Amino acid sequence: MPQIGEILREGKGKKVYATDDPDKAIVFFKDEAMAFHGLKRGRILGKGEVNNQVCEHLFKLLKENGIETHFIEHIDARHSLVKRCDMLPFAVKIRNIAAGQLTERTGIPVGTKLEPTVIEFVLKDSDMEVDPIVNHTHIYAMKAATPEEMEQITEMSLKIDEILTAYLKDISIELIDMKLEYGRYHGRIILADEITPDTARFWDASTHEPLDIDRFRRDMDNVAEAYQEVLHRMMGVS
Amino acid sequence: MPQIGEILREGKGKKVYATDDPDKAIVFFKDEAMAFHGLKRGRILGKGEVNNQVCEHLFKLLKENGIETHFIEHIDARHSLVKRCDMLPFAVKIRNIAAGQLTERTGIPVGTKLEPTVIEFVLKDSDMEVDPIVNHTHIYAMKAATPEEMEQITEMSLKIDEILTAYLKDISIELIDMKLEYGRYHGRIILADEITPDTARFWDASTHEPLDIDRFRRDMDNVAEAYQEVLHRMMGVS
Repeated sequence: MPQIGEILREGKGKKVYATDDPDKAIVFFKDEAMAFHGLKRGRILGKGEVNNQVCEHLFKLLKENGIETHFIEHIDARHSLVKRCDMLPFAVKIRNIAAGQLTERTGIPVGTKLEPTVIEFVLKDSDMEVDPIVNHTHIYAMKAATPEEMEQITEMSLKIDEILTAYLKDISIELIDMKLEYGRYHGRIILADEITPDTARFWDASTHEPLDIDRFRRDMDNVAEAYQEVLHRMMGVS
Repeated sequence: MPQIGEILREGKGKKVYATDDPDKAIVFFKDEAMAFHGLKRGRILGKGEVNNQVCEHLFKLLKENGIETHFIEHIDARHSLVKRCDMLPFAVKIRNIAAGQLTERTGIPVGTKLEPTVIEFVLKDSDMEVDPIVNHTHIYAMKAATPEEMEQITEMSLKIDEILTAYLKDISIELIDMKLEYGRYHGRIILADEITPDTARFWDASTHEPLDIDRFRRDMDNVAEAYQEVLHRMMGVS
């Protein structure tokens, strides 16, 4: 196991540390939760442990289906060992059903099936109140990715959506939307960051109740229980 | 000349009226100016007359170069007769040089040559503070245009940019960016709305001084004179 080193970056739900191996990093999943660009802050008991397991589970599933992710191995309840990537400065949002910012932006009502699947690119680390949407031409003008990389990212994102939508359907979860982040690793584009109820909208397929960070955003009850429920369904615990 | 009828729509710089011919509309160019989503309002003396002539001049130039526009004929100093279109709910922004919202959004400094040319689609008539950027997938999910139309709009917009950049260069004006609006007319996509110093950024090629609505936005002097200067250069008056 590599030695934990300096902190590389800290997000809403995680910290990423360097290790003594330049090719490896360690992710630590936090209980802290944040919404509305930091205006709302709190703690969801046990979230870090749940997210570490959920992310490991989904990234292993993606690997089995031919998607390269940064995940290497489980360390402990809240830590995972990952490939250390050079992160791209934008995130990808894949939207199957209208929710969140898309509904404000376009006027499409919440819950509407989006045809085709909407794919958005948003700049991370912007000073703006809402992470700004950019398109391919902005990304090229910013020299943030090449056309070949954008094609690969789009193809990977739609494939990830297809794999996870099918998998989650079997455990009665509807994948509404999710944020994906990619990095470069030895010249290859690989999936990094996380896929968890912090970064995806998971609705119970029967009740359409959110089982994700929206419960925290909207002051709903049973936030921690919803995270546990997602993990239990994935682990086959009923 | 068709009879003027009910008002169809009113924008920052114009009013559009129906006529007794369902295929024709009349555009009236106003002196009123507006910025920052209506927070700043004023009047630029003679702007209506200048914009009517500038737009007629540029739309005729585009027609000669194979671009169909809504312009039919000159009526009087502030009125033009145009084809009555079913307007698309989004505008197209073509950006050659970084300025305005793009610089806030991407961090690219003002004045940077954009490579490739940036093309943005923004929803009109949104309730949001800044007209939201959307991409092809949003436009398809909103059923606002078809893939064939989007391809045509993109191609036309880049061609318009090429034609106008070359033309304006000859009169020592740099085309920084412009907003284009399209409509459907008997099933065809045609250029509508206006191209004027209200909707485009024109910089003097030597001094890089704005000769457009940015002078009003920024409380600079000689606003009306800058509009007149653009017209004079186009008319070959020195």
